[in-house]
Amino acid sequence: MLDYNAGQVKLIDRIQSTWLVKKGFPHMQEKGVIMDVTNVEQAQIAEQAGAVAVMLLDKLPYDIRQSGGIARTASVTLFDEIREHISIPIMMKCRIGHIGEARILEAAGVDTIDESEVLTPADTEHHIWKHDFKVPFVCGCTDLGSALRRIEEGASMLRSKGEPGTGDVKHAIVHFNKIKEQLRLITASKDEPSELIKYSREFKVSFDIIQLTANMGRLPITIFAAGGISSPADAAFMMSLGCDGIFVGSGIFKATDPQSRAESVVLATSFWDDPEIVLKAQKMVSEDKAMGGIDMETKPSSERWETRGSDI
Amino acid sequence: MLDYNAGQVKLIDRIQSTWLVKKGFPHMQEKGVIMDVTNVEQAQIAEQAGAVAVMLLDKLPYDIRQSGGIARTASVTLFDEIREHISIPIMMKCRIGHIGEARILEAAGVDTIDESEVLTPADTEHHIWKHDFKVPFVCGCTDLGSALRRIEEGASMLRSKGEPGTGDVKHAIVHFNKIKEQLRLITASKDEPSELIKYSREFKVSFDIIQLTANMGRLPITIFAAGGISSPADAAFMMSLGCDGIFVGSGIFKATDPQSRAESVVLATSFWDDPEIVLKAQKMVSEDKAMGGIDMETKPSSERWETRGSDI
Repeated sequence: MLDYNAGQVKLIDRIQSTWLVKKGFPHMQEKGVIMDVTNVEQAQIAEQAGAVAVMLLDKLPYDIRQSGGIARTASVTLFDEIREHISIPIMMKCRIGHIGEARILEAAGVDTIDESEVLTPADTEHHIWKHDFKVPFVCGCTDLGSALRRIEEGASMLRSKGEPGTGDVKHAIVHFNKIKEQLRLITASKDEPSELIKYSREFKVSFDIIQLTANMGRLPITIFAAGGISSPADAAFMMSLGCDGIFVGSGIFKATDPQSRAESVVLATSFWDDPEIVLKAQKMVSEDKAMGGIDMETKPSSERWETRGSDI
Repeated sequence: MLDYNAGQVKLIDRIQSTWLVKKGFPHMQEKGVIMDVTNVEQAQIAEQAGAVAVMLLDKLPYDIRQSGGIARTASVTLFDEIREHISIPIMMKCRIGHIGEARILEAAGVDTIDESEVLTPADTEHHIWKHDFKVPFVCGCTDLGSALRRIEEGASMLRSKGEPGTGDVKHAIVHFNKIKEQLRLITASKDEPSELIKYSREFKVSFDIIQLTANMGRLPITIFAAGGISSPADAAFMMSLGCDGIFVGSGIFKATDPQSRAESVVLATSFWDDPEIVLKAQKMVSEDKAMGGIDMETKPSSERWETRGSDI
């Protein structure tokens, strides 16, 4: 862990400077698309299509599902290589609770760490205490409780979990609808502290965070939609539910039209509330070139990733 | 509810002045005994014996158990009468969550309100939001979680729940041992925020309160032992477990030697760590004059009061 008492300058640096940067950096990516990539070629396609950042993985979520076994953080050598070829920010994933991987990614100079259920969770009792890091973290959530717990641990960006690698946007929609319903509930109770304290206990989060969120009427930090988004229509739908931007995982590079699909999702995300432009974006892709996808209803519940780390 | 926006003077009065008084008033009663009374004569015996306060009830806990039915707050007319005859502070009980009774007791000028499981709980989802009151509240607890939840709601004094009216100190001992064990656990984790946040979720209380308690190594407010204490030996034992003072309920006025028993418990509480004085105190009472008591192990669990309100 970083030393909290390593001198006044460092203390100010950590507490004042970095929280502004850590919260502000994701904010600057709003209305944008972040794309999963596994090599230099894909990273360049993403950059050219207008992605605001890329998420570097060893395998796309769809392929992680197919290969099974234990999924770990991607190669930092590959990160160094990709950094030479693109100028947009590069995110990388670490396993839930895996402080060792997170420290390596921070030392490597990764722009944002995703503490992600797409990789095999390492610690079943703790998420990473993200206040100890200078690099911003993004974390997945399935409801308001898990979202606020991640904020309390120091996450500076959120995303829905959904079910990555499935090409099925349904799960992300469930998570956003749940968050919105719970936000309405606490916002309607914002002047009743004895109700808010009840929700703070139900959600297992500090009262101050519940009160702040209730007063704001939204999550206090940037939240993107993620998990199963594969078309411009998906992206526009998720934006209409109130998310701040879009992660696309397998949806682009498991399709056979990645270049035009990447561009179309960027277009539909930025102009989600203009039906003409979303229609134009949707015409840029062809359904017969889309990823096939996986219907999780036909799979055993042990294959679900949304439950990973969500109850802690 | 009181108006938070009723002018700056009132705001300062509430937030600054009253929290000092609300927390400080119970602190001044430490090392003392608070006795349950139901009439003027008992209140005068308590005062003469050296009680630091009396708790005015309609019936003693033992009699509440015997009579069954719904137990409510005692008569405020009786409070007015007793106030004419004694000079020590007078506490009264309201039902858990019963804001109506609490407002009446505050308006009557009661010195401390006990939001008590001895009366029939009124609200099964909320305790009273005690920050809205100027009068101090004492609340019962059975473990560190329930203790800290009551503090977060604005309680300025705690007591163990035990099993009042039974004359059996065992239950209060269970509660104190549990609190002490959990205090040791969080104090040993005080420099590990990722452990403390885990406990804040387990105990359903804000992180700040867990951190404060861990750093102090004790509960941040006064805690008395209560529930089943009936002899000088009981009082001295509870004090040795680290409580700040003693409530005696049925133990005194269901005995046939109330005057000397009241004096002996005061003596044993104040000088609990001097075996000679505790021996002298114990000689002042006779076991054949003690209350008979109730063994809760022989009763159905629905007759237990310790569970009332403890899980919220």
